Amino acid sequence: MTWNRFKTHYYSNPKLGLSLDISRIPFPDGFLESMEPKLQQAYAAMDALEQGAFANPDENRMVGHYWLRAPQLAPTKELADAVSSTLAKIHDFTAKVHKGEISGSAGKFRELLVIGIGGSALGPQFVSQALGRLKSGRDKMHVSFFDNTDPDGMDFVLKEIGPRLKQTLVLVISKSGGTAETRNGMLAAQAAFRSAGLDYAKHFVAVTGAGSKLDQVAVKEGWLERFPMWDWVGGRTSELCAVGLLPAALQGIKIDQMLAGAAAVDVVTRKHSLRDNPAALMALMWYWATDGRGAKDMVVLPYKDRLLLFSRYLQQLVMESLGKELDLAGNVVNQGIAVYGNKGSTDQHACVQQLREGVNNFFVTFVEVLQDRTAGPAPEVEPGVTSGDYLQGFLLGTRDALSEKNRHSITITLSEVSPRSVGMLIALYERVVGLYASLVGINAYHQPGVEAGKKAAGTVITLKKQIDAALSAGGGAAFTAETLAARIGDPGKTELVFKVLEHLAANPGSHVTKVARKPWHESTYTWQT
Amino acid sequence: MTWNRFKTHYYSNPKLGLSLDISRIPFPDGFLESMEPKLQQAYAAMDALEQGAFANPDENRMVGHYWLRAPQLAPTKELADAVSSTLAKIHDFTAKVHKGEISGSAGKFRELLVIGIGGSALGPQFVSQALGRLKSGRDKMHVSFFDNTDPDGMDFVLKEIGPRLKQTLVLVISKSGGTAETRNGMLAAQAAFRSAGLDYAKHFVAVTGAGSKLDQVAVKEGWLERFPMWDWVGGRTSELCAVGLLPAALQGIKIDQMLAGAAAVDVVTRKHSLRDNPAALMALMWYWATDGRGAKDMVVLPYKDRLLLFSRYLQQLVMESLGKELDLAGNVVNQGIAVYGNKGSTDQHACVQQLREGVNNFFVTFVEVLQDRTAGPAPEVEPGVTSGDYLQGFLLGTRDALSEKNRHSITITLSEVSPRSVGMLIALYERVVGLYASLVGINAYHQPGVEAGKKAAGTVITLKKQIDAALSAGGGAAFTAETLAARIGDPGKTELVFKVLEHLAANPGSHVTKVARKPWHESTYTWQT
Repeated sequence: MTWNRFKTHYYSNPKLGLSLDISRIPFPDGFLESMEPKLQQAYAAMDALEQGAFANPDENRMVGHYWLRAPQLAPTKELADAVSSTLAKIHDFTAKVHKGEISGSAGKFRELLVIGIGGSALGPQFVSQALGRLKSGRDKMHVSFFDNTDPDGMDFVLKEIGPRLKQTLVLVISKSGGTAETRNGMLAAQAAFRSAGLDYAKHFVAVTGAGSKLDQVAVKEGWLERFPMWDWVGGRTSELCAVGLLPAALQGIKIDQMLAGAAAVDVVTRKHSLRDNPAALMALMWYWATDGRGAKDMVVLPYKDRLLLFSRYLQQLVMESLGKELDLAGNVVNQGIAVYGNKGSTDQHACVQQLREGVNNFFVTFVEVLQDRTAGPAPEVEPGVTSGDYLQGFLLGTRDALSEKNRHSITITLSEVSPRSVGMLIALYERVVGLYASLVGINAYHQPGVEAGKKAAGTVITLKKQIDAALSAGGGAAFTAETLAARIGDPGKTELVFKVLEHLAANPGSHVTKVARKPWHESTYTWQT
Repeated sequence: MTWNRFKTHYYSNPKLGLSLDISRIPFPDGFLESMEPKLQQAYAAMDALEQGAFANPDENRMVGHYWLRAPQLAPTKELADAVSSTLAKIHDFTAKVHKGEISGSAGKFRELLVIGIGGSALGPQFVSQALGRLKSGRDKMHVSFFDNTDPDGMDFVLKEIGPRLKQTLVLVISKSGGTAETRNGMLAAQAAFRSAGLDYAKHFVAVTGAGSKLDQVAVKEGWLERFPMWDWVGGRTSELCAVGLLPAALQGIKIDQMLAGAAAVDVVTRKHSLRDNPAALMALMWYWATDGRGAKDMVVLPYKDRLLLFSRYLQQLVMESLGKELDLAGNVVNQGIAVYGNKGSTDQHACVQQLREGVNNFFVTFVEVLQDRTAGPAPEVEPGVTSGDYLQGFLLGTRDALSEKNRHSITITLSEVSPRSVGMLIALYERVVGLYASLVGINAYHQPGVEAGKKAAGTVITLKKQIDAALSAGGGAAFTAETLAARIGDPGKTELVFKVLEHLAANPGSHVTKVARKPWHESTYTWQT
C-alpha cells in the first residue's frame, strides 16, 4: 500500500477516538464519486427514518433506535418522554439494587440471570464481556444467561449459580412474551426458585412490550419491576434500550457513557458528506468488496479479547438486516453479507492460513484498539517491547500478509475499549447497515424469513403430540416410523416421525422405548406406561 | 425430502450412537459412484499415512494423530511406548494433583490456567466447555485460558483468579516454545506469581517438544513436571495428545472415554466401503456442496449449548488444513472451506433470516443430540412437551425451512454429549479433513501461509525498536510519521511508522507523546524522558 493512498483514504476523528482506514479496499479512482447519487438517496431515506417515517411498511411501524440516545430527536414528545423516563427508571432501580434497598430472599442481589435470545441476548452478552471488570477486579453483579431452550444448558448455568440463587435477580426479556426459548427459560428458572423454596416473583423483572403476555404475567404475579420494550425498536437494534442498558447498569457498566458514545457517532454519521461520515465510507466499502450482492463474506477480527463477541453480535445485526430475498421493489435479489470471526491474534492460528492462501471469498474488518491496558503500561516481554506491541505487530503483520496476496481489508481503530467506544461501535454499525440496505435497495428492518423456521418448529411440536397420542392409544403395540406415520395419516412426514421417535426413545420420561432392528428403519417404538 | 431418499442415504450406527443424514445434499444419482476412484486413492493415501509415510514431505515428518488412540498401530515400538507412557503419566500426575500429593503454595491445586494458542487452546477450550460439570455441579479444577497476547485480556483472567492464584496450576503449551503469544502469556503469569510472593516454578508445567526452548527453561527452573509434544502430531490434531488430555483430565473429564470414542470412530472411518464410512460420506458431501473448491461456506450449527465452541475448533481444523494456495502438483488452486456458526436454536435469531432468504453461499451441518439432559427428563413447558422437544423442533423446523428454499444441509446425530461422543466428533472430522484433502489433491498437514503473518509481525516489532531509537536519539524533537520514516531511512514504511506511533502515544510508559494537528498526518510525536 502506498502512503499516498493511505493518506487520501484515512478517516481520522481524534475527538471520538475513532479512525477508519479504507485504503486496502482497492476501489478505483472515481468509484466514490460514482456512488454519490445512490448515497444521497440513502441519506434521505435515513433522514426520513429518523424523523419517524414508516421505514418498516410491512409491519406498519417506525424505526427509532436513534432516538434512544437522542430523545430530543424523537418525532413526538410522548416518545421522547418514554425514552427519558425509562432511562431514569433504570438508574433508579439499579441504584436501589446496588444499595440493597431492593433485595431478594437473602439480602442484596449479587447474581444476575438474563433470560433472552437473539437481540435480547447477543447485545447484552457482547457488552457484558467487553466492559466487565473494566477498572476493578469485580463487577457490581455477576451475570449469566439463558439464551436457548437447551435443558442441559440451563442446568449448567443453574449449577454455576448454585446456592447463590437466593441472591439472584432474574431479567426476562421478550418483546412479545411469546418467544418459546425465553418462555421455556423463564419456566426453568421459576422451577429452580420453587425447588429452593424461594418466591420467584420477588426476584423476577420483566423487560417486555406493554400489555404483552409476559407483561400480564408479571403484573398478575407481582414481579419486582417491569421495563418497556417498544415496537419502534427492533430486536437487533435494542442494545441501547432497556434490553441492553438494564443488565449493563446492574453489572456496573456506565450506561450513560455508552449512550453518549452512540450519540456522538450518530452526529457524525448523519452527515451528508462522504469524507466526513465513516458509516457512509464503510457502506461503500461493503458495496465494493461484495459487489453489492454479498459476493464476499465479512471476516471481523478485533485484536482485543474484550471484543470477542462483537462478530457474534454483528452476525445478527448484519445478516438479519441484509439477508433478504426481495428488494423494495419486490424483485428476487437474495441479498446479505455473511459475517464471521472471533479475535486476533488468536484467529491467526485458526483461519489465517486459509485467508491468505485459500478461497478469496471474503474481506476482513480489523478492529484495532490503541490502549493496551487500563492498569498502566503493558509489561515488557523483551527490552523495550511489550505484549501489547506484539498484539499490534500481529495485526499489522497479518494485514500486510493478506494485502500481499490481494486479500482486502478495512481497519477500524479505537482509542480504547470503554463504555463510550462500545456505544460508538454499536451506533456505527447500525448506521452502516441502514445506509448499505438503501444502497442495495432492501428493507433492513424486517425479518420475514425468521417466521418460517418457527412455524416449521410448531409443526414438529404438533406432530410430537400426535405421535404421543397414537403411540399411547396403541398401548403396547410396536410401531416402525413408517407404520406410525401411516397411523397418524401423514406418511409424507415419515422422516419427521422417525426423528421425533429417536429423540423420544433417547429420553427417560417420554414413555417411548425402542427396539433396534436391522435395517435401522425396521426399528420399533412402543409406549411404555 | 422424500422418505425414500432419506432411507437410502441415512447412515446409522447404533453401537456408536452416531448417525449421519446426507439426504438433504441434492447430489444426483451416480455421483457417489463417480467419486469411487478418487475415494479409493484417498483411502490408500490415508492407509499409507497411518502406516507412517511422510505425508508431510515439505516438513519431512510423519502424521500420526491416529496412533494417539491406538498406539498399537504406530509404526514403531518407540512411538507406541511414547503414547502409552505419556497417557500413564497424565493419569498419574492428575491423580496426585487431585489427591493433593502434588500441591502448590497453599495446598491443593484448585485452579488451572492453560497458556496456549491455536491448537493448544481451541481443542482444550472446546472440550472444557463441552464436558465441564457434566454430572455433578463442580469440576475437579476450574479452568481458564490465556490464548492471546492481549495484556488486558490477561489482566481480566488474573482478576478472575484473584487470591486463588496460590492454588493455581499453570500449563504452558507450545511445541517449539517459540510461539510469541504463549511466551508472552507465560511471562505475564510468572510476573503475577512473583507479585504474589509465590515461586512460580512450583506451579508451572510444560507441555512441549523435547529439548525445545520451553523444555530447557522448565528443566533449568525446576518446574513441577514436563509432558511431551511430538513432531508427528500437528497443532490442529493435538487434542488427543497431552495438549488436550492433560487439561481435560485435570478438570475431571474422563479422557479414556474420549480416546475410546475416537478409536471407535477410527475403526469405522478406516473402512474402504463408502456406505459404511461416515467420514467418506461427509467428504463427498463437502465435495459436492462446495464444488470441490470451497465455493460454499460450511455453517456448523450444533443444537446444544455444550457444543458452542465446536465450530470455532473446526475453523482451525478445517480452514488451516484445507486453505491452501497450491495443490500437491504445485498448481495454484486456492482451496479451502470457510467455517462459521455458533449454536442452535440461538443462531436462528441471528443468521437464519439470511440463510433462508439471502445469499445462497453455504451449506449447513446440523449437529443433533438426542439426550436432552443427564439429570433426568427435561422439564415440561406445556402438557406433554418439554424444552428439549422445542430444541429438537427448532432444529427440524429450520432444516425444513432451509430445504424448502433449496439451502442444503447435512445432519450428524449423537446419542448424547459425553467424553466418548466428543472423542468421536474429533476423530470424525479429523478423518473427513484428511479424505477431503486427498479428493482435492492438497496437503492437509502443513500451513505455509501462517509464517507470513508472523514474519510480517516481526518486521513491525523491529520497526518499533527503530522508531524508539530514532525518537530518543532525536531528544525532544517533534517528528511527523513522514519525517520519522525518512529519518529511519525507510519512507516506504511510512504507514507502519504512523500506526506504531499512534499505538505508542496511546500508552503510558512508551515515552512518546503526540501533538494532534490538522490535517491528521501533520501530527507530531516526541520522545519524553
